[in-house]
Amino acid sequence: MNSTIHVLVWGEYRHEKKNPKVAEIYPDGMHETIAAFLRETPGLKVSTAWLDQPEHGLTEAVLEQTDVLLWWGHMAHGEVADEVVDRVQRRVLEGMGLIVLHSGHYAKIFKRLMGTTCSLKWRESTDKERVWNIAPHHPITQGVGEYFEIPAEEMYGEPFGIPTPDELIFISWFTGGEVFRSGATWQRGNGRVFYFRPGHETYPTYHNADVQRVITNAVHWARPTVCIADDCPNSPALEPLPDDPEAAERPTLGFR
Amino acid sequence: MNSTIHVLVWGEYRHEKKNPKVAEIYPDGMHETIAAFLRETPGLKVSTAWLDQPEHGLTEAVLEQTDVLLWWGHMAHGEVADEVVDRVQRRVLEGMGLIVLHSGHYAKIFKRLMGTTCSLKWRESTDKERVWNIAPHHPITQGVGEYFEIPAEEMYGEPFGIPTPDELIFISWFTGGEVFRSGATWQRGNGRVFYFRPGHETYPTYHNADVQRVITNAVHWARPTVCIADDCPNSPALEPLPDDPEAAERPTLGFR
Amino acid sequence: MNSTIHVLVWGEYRHEKKNPKVAEIYPDGMHETIAAFLRETPGLKVSTAWLDQPEHGLTEAVLEQTDVLLWWGHMAHGEVADEVVDRVQRRVLEGMGLIVLHSGHYAKIFKRLMGTTCSLKWRESTDKERVWNIAPHHPITQGVGEYFEIPAEEMYGEPFGIPTPDELIFISWFTGGEVFRSGATWQRGNGRVFYFRPGHETYPTYHNADVQRVITNAVHWARPTVCIADDCPNSPALEPLPDDPEAAERPTLGFR
Amino acid sequence: MNSTIHVLVWGEYRHEKKNPKVAEIYPDGMHETIAAFLRETPGLKVSTAWLDQPEHGLTEAVLEQTDVLLWWGHMAHGEVADEVVDRVQRRVLEGMGLIVLHSGHYAKIFKRLMGTTCSLKWRESTDKERVWNIAPHHPITQGVGEYFEIPAEEMYGEPFGIPTPDELIFISWFTGGEVFRSGATWQRGNGRVFYFRPGHETYPTYHNADVQRVITNAVHWARPTVCIADDCPNSPALEPLPDDPEAAERPTLGFR
Repeated sequence: MNSTIHVLVWGEYRHEKKNPKVAEIYPDGMHETIAAFLRETPGLKVSTAWLDQPEHGLTEAVLEQTDVLLWWGHMAHGEVADEVVDRVQRRVLEGMGLIVLHSGHYAKIFKRLMGTTCSLKWRESTDKERVWNIAPHHPITQGVGEYFEIPAEEMYGEPFGIPTPDELIFISWFTGGEVFRSGATWQRGNGRVFYFRPGHETYPTYHNADVQRVITNAVHWARPTVCIADDCPNSPALEPLPDDPEAAERPTLGFR
Repeated sequence: MNSTIHVLVWGEYRHEKKNPKVAEIYPDGMHETIAAFLRETPGLKVSTAWLDQPEHGLTEAVLEQTDVLLWWGHMAHGEVADEVVDRVQRRVLEGMGLIVLHSGHYAKIFKRLMGTTCSLKWRESTDKERVWNIAPHHPITQGVGEYFEIPAEEMYGEPFGIPTPDELIFISWFTGGEVFRSGATWQRGNGRVFYFRPGHETYPTYHNADVQRVITNAVHWARPTVCIADDCPNSPALEPLPDDPEAAERPTLGFR
Repeated sequence: MNSTIHVLVWGEYRHEKKNPKVAEIYPDGMHETIAAFLRETPGLKVSTAWLDQPEHGLTEAVLEQTDVLLWWGHMAHGEVADEVVDRVQRRVLEGMGLIVLHSGHYAKIFKRLMGTTCSLKWRESTDKERVWNIAPHHPITQGVGEYFEIPAEEMYGEPFGIPTPDELIFISWFTGGEVFRSGATWQRGNGRVFYFRPGHETYPTYHNADVQRVITNAVHWARPTVCIADDCPNSPALEPLPDDPEAAERPTLGFR
Repeated sequence: MNSTIHVLVWGEYRHEKKNPKVAEIYPDGMHETIAAFLRETPGLKVSTAWLDQPEHGLTEAVLEQTDVLLWWGHMAHGEVADEVVDRVQRRVLEGMGLIVLHSGHYAKIFKRLMGTTCSLKWRESTDKERVWNIAPHHPITQGVGEYFEIPAEEMYGEPFGIPTPDELIFISWFTGGEVFRSGATWQRGNGRVFYFRPGHETYPTYHNADVQRVITNAVHWARPTVCIADDCPNSPALEPLPDDPEAAERPTLGFR
């Protein structure tokens, strides 16, 4: 497990083409900005993919080679093919790490893995966000202080429609009076999932050093330990069983 | 919350028609056996529904009137319409309780709410199952002793592909050498979910007094406290926000 | 379990005697204010106890009769006898409910049950506290809206040195820029524990209707289901064991 | 964090001196057997300590240098000085890893960190133990198969009086009919805690290759990420607060 981590940054890549303000902040797309700072970390091999590629750039072959997938989507969640969502889910359950960013809270893959609404409050305005570090021991928060600030961000507020996280990492304070569970982890099958709130497209959030640090840490944290395919085996007994006088006449169901 | 609990027992109702042995044990279907013992409890109003009814007996109107839904399925999980699964999921997230029985571990609705494979080991043989009570304080285990036994049952073994339960209630010991997390709870949205392992169709498990006690307790435990529809509101600030000199030129995205 | 709930409100009762401002708000002590609003709820039988009584008013006999204990302490945590803390802990583990209020985060009994520092940030100033309801389905939040406000309160900030709660119920927003996990539950043995943040002695917090509602709900939620004494039994086998040729020469340790 | 892990194996070291059978299995004490296999792992620097040393070998200086502490005790839990337990607890909350073995479930330090009875069922007989791997993705289970067997061990049975683990790693099956949560983790402050069941002194369990693998994995998993001293700071506001007309007359309490 000491070898290279293969990272794939997936971006919806639509706002950047439609909204000049977003294009100004992220001229090559948000996914390329994220990939760029990850590429500065030794030991990561970073690729990108986006919605309008064939199979959204998430073919079987690509996913087999991916250790950690990052996901940013917003205006086109509904265009992601269910077949691709199935494929990503399968890979997470086998062991692939998944980092879901900001408006990805409503991505099909996140809702699929959570089983819940993933709804929240929101407001695009002039809020400052202060992200409090609730878990200073956690690998994801190393190098981040007690809190960090984002001068302007979209507000997300509670209640957030998620299952209780395994670990709560960050809670955000917003100027306008709300709070939000901004960083949280879940084990799903053999894969690790991290949701990280910041990153609205009209703000330069992915240029923020603290945000970059958290995402970089999360990539390391989410790397797979195993790759185990799903299986539901008929298992012979390991200890002696009593005889069953009716066994001969019991119908074999031949189905699971 | 002191009024009647409206309970709906959903059965696949196929094995009973195809397999004489199952029909002998459950002449009116497993769902009717379960409904019958629940009807003996004051304060419960119990109905049944099954796969081959229109909309599987799970119309909007029926679900709106349901406080707690019990689910047994096995050989025809794939025949349950996705639209009905969507509907049941929505109701659970609004607040309806859901009790998933035995082979329902592979029901679409359970996999939907868990987000994981829900796979396990299995064996139809002559195992005895001893169900250990891990949570003697829990409302679901009241009246059950330290353990109870089921003389013959299908074996289910670990690893069980579920998210970490909020509460682990039972662990089973099997003669053949396996263990299984046989009772577990999860909060999903505003609804409570309980998975309970015993109940293979070829054994008279739902005639067992301890099994009946657990299911009856679970119905009471799973009753809703609220019914809250999904919502993802744009929320005005509760505290003064700074002026935003760029606000006028910022495009309104008009989408969430 | 439909009978009366026996509630005991324990107050340190020192600030009220030393600080005229506190005495003005709580002339008979904070515990009596809390007891008074609880007494308005049908089905509760409410008593009080305080530090300067013999055995702090927490004799074996009193605790045996207590279903739910509320605890407020601050300036004299160190004066609570360890023997009494042992006794309260034993009762919680047997099944008694415990509700720890505000500065009780540093009470011996809370630290004992948590195993951690229970430390936090704090500031006595002019903050407003907005308490967000993270768990609208939970019995403790019924009748409380999406949030409630306390016009002036002491600030408590993260990180809060507690184990991950079983359920996170409230998160507070403070004017000065902090957040806090203000309501949280833990199962400890057979007893339920709820920590609720508001209640600094120099503010009239326990006269606040929302605070009263939460505490009243919590008393109902924390009522015991069982009373099970601690036991670590030598247990005979339930299934046949193999013969042990060395059994005769194996020394009996006679100790656990 | 790539440097050496400083490991300290603490043994009670009494059974080995009193019981010839134990001395035969562990001639230099159980702690030395455990230290010996850990010393074979590159990157670990392993020391030992035991009860009858001054301060039980757990001086401030020794603990400051310890990254991961392993603990085996049984017949003399009561002889461990409370002052030393305080010290070990403080170090765990600062970040030190702790691995508690077998009868250490009743060690003062484990009960301190759990807050519960830590009681269980037990039987010294001829049971075989089959330890099922519930978490194949977890760092602690790498290299261990679906299960491993210990031909003869003391039985520990449920209910086990612990708080719900953060992660359940192993569940054991015993010949005599019981089950047990044999491997479990808890975050406590900044430190990681792992409880691992096997290891009764009259069986050669710590010579078992699977047991050795689990313990070695756990040492790596439990290494600290941080060392953060306890603190409960008075914190100035980060955002403007309203004026408080009564501030001048509000008494400063000068105490927390």
